[in-house]
Amino acid sequence: MTEIKIFSPATVANVSCGFDVLGFCLDGIGDEMIVRKTPEKGIKITKIKGYDLPNEATKNVAGVAALALIEDAQPDCGFEIEIYKNIKPGSGVGSSSASASGSVFAINELLGRPYSKTQLTYFAMKGEALASGSEHADNIAPGIFGGFTLVKSTVPLEVVELPTPNDLFAVIIHPQIEIKTSEARAILPKDIPLKNAITQWANMGSLVHALHISDYQMIKRSLIDVVVEPYRSRLIPHYNEVKLAAFNKGALGCGISGSGPSIFTLCQGQIQAEQVELAMREVYSQTDIAFNTYSCKINTTGIKILATDS
Amino acid sequence: MTEIKIFSPATVANVSCGFDVLGFCLDGIGDEMIVRKTPEKGIKITKIKGYDLPNEATKNVAGVAALALIEDAQPDCGFEIEIYKNIKPGSGVGSSSASASGSVFAINELLGRPYSKTQLTYFAMKGEALASGSEHADNIAPGIFGGFTLVKSTVPLEVVELPTPNDLFAVIIHPQIEIKTSEARAILPKDIPLKNAITQWANMGSLVHALHISDYQMIKRSLIDVVVEPYRSRLIPHYNEVKLAAFNKGALGCGISGSGPSIFTLCQGQIQAEQVELAMREVYSQTDIAFNTYSCKINTTGIKILATDS
Repeated sequence: MTEIKIFSPATVANVSCGFDVLGFCLDGIGDEMIVRKTPEKGIKITKIKGYDLPNEATKNVAGVAALALIEDAQPDCGFEIEIYKNIKPGSGVGSSSASASGSVFAINELLGRPYSKTQLTYFAMKGEALASGSEHADNIAPGIFGGFTLVKSTVPLEVVELPTPNDLFAVIIHPQIEIKTSEARAILPKDIPLKNAITQWANMGSLVHALHISDYQMIKRSLIDVVVEPYRSRLIPHYNEVKLAAFNKGALGCGISGSGPSIFTLCQGQIQAEQVELAMREVYSQTDIAFNTYSCKINTTGIKILATDS
Repeated sequence: MTEIKIFSPATVANVSCGFDVLGFCLDGIGDEMIVRKTPEKGIKITKIKGYDLPNEATKNVAGVAALALIEDAQPDCGFEIEIYKNIKPGSGVGSSSASASGSVFAINELLGRPYSKTQLTYFAMKGEALASGSEHADNIAPGIFGGFTLVKSTVPLEVVELPTPNDLFAVIIHPQIEIKTSEARAILPKDIPLKNAITQWANMGSLVHALHISDYQMIKRSLIDVVVEPYRSRLIPHYNEVKLAAFNKGALGCGISGSGPSIFTLCQGQIQAEQVELAMREVYSQTDIAFNTYSCKINTTGIKILATDS
């Protein structure tokens, strides 16, 4: 195999009670990438379509992640990367993660899979650091592993693969506003009440349990964020109305995707997801904020191979 | 049935990363209680052996819990209660909870089980409030449900029954010192760093996952408390030495049981539990603090019926 085409999905991080550690993988929305072996060593980004991003490897998240991998692997060849971006940077559904994860996933395939998923996550984190200023894996892990993932720790890196109930759907609404990650971070307090922290870890425990036993109502009772949402939701206009609209249609949970501005909901079944999507659209339709929505089953596979040359 | 004899076990609350919500049930150590229907209505405590506790029903946790139940049930009879206490009050393994849980469990059996385990937990919390000043269920739930329990919320009361891996043992060491619950509470900060809270809920999530898949090494990597232990461990002399001794023998985790002074460890298998128990004993043997230890498999049944008159 000398060439591979992959689909690298969008992901949701900061899932309610799992702020900073829990994420899940979307389907249908994601970047496509083609990666090719080259006789010349090193990483070259030969094409970027969709959004205007740097094509110098050391300044592009996909390039930096790939460089981290080949520095370790020391292969006898190099790689060129074409990126067809569909995930808008800054939308809150892991745009930079998708690029970083996709490049290391593809190169690993071309090299005959020398690395584990956890190792790929580690390399992709180097790319993510370029975009966000710090190495974190809460968008990368769900993209590489699929389904729900818990980044138990980053040093040493430990990713826990959680089970995904079969009938779980996600709906995303992306209001076309800009939230600076730096602002989203600055708004968070350094210290939080112990009382709220206890509520959060009780919900985290029951959410993991509920995912294991596919108890949708317990998932609903657990998808509560008493720590971060009260601060960050202020940055997203009409957040509370969207949330209320989603709950009125039976959504299991609703929260800020990543650091926003996208809002995610989790739903039981496609019919509920469609109704929730309509209700969320309805809220923003009455404003002058442009937006788009999409819904999908939780993607339990993660990055997918679309084509190879052998 | 007019008479029942039960065993109400000791329990461990505040299990490492699950401070205030996670508990588990011990075996072999617990109180025995005999409860009898009487023609005369109301609750009478007719005997207390083992420790000097009030036998006026409204001043005894078993009595208060029983009164809460009969106020709701309005039975045509009353009950007399004999308490044979083996769990020393103030030892940190749920002495008051065992009395409160035992009395409502026994009365529920005598009445033909009108109440669910969650309802019994609710009544027992009324008794617990007498002992500790606030209604909490983190010792009561594991006694009534058995195994590992997560008190997801107290208002409304929701207890989540977690799975217990088959080869999980607990070792307890009880140094005979007094820690006032008020002091153990006062030493805790009202606010904690968000960073530590995140670590705690990541560990909580991975612990619940590890219990589901019986991954003992993941249990070990998750049984970490970065929030409460650093404060409360100061109240227990030789705590760090005991912990180190337990880990040197392979213990999966070690923490403060309840608000102390008992220290618990969790172990994989009986042989490891025996070695850990010896190592913990060794530490306190070199001090002038009296202590006792015991070890057992996790009790997945909870309160047990020892005898009935029919």
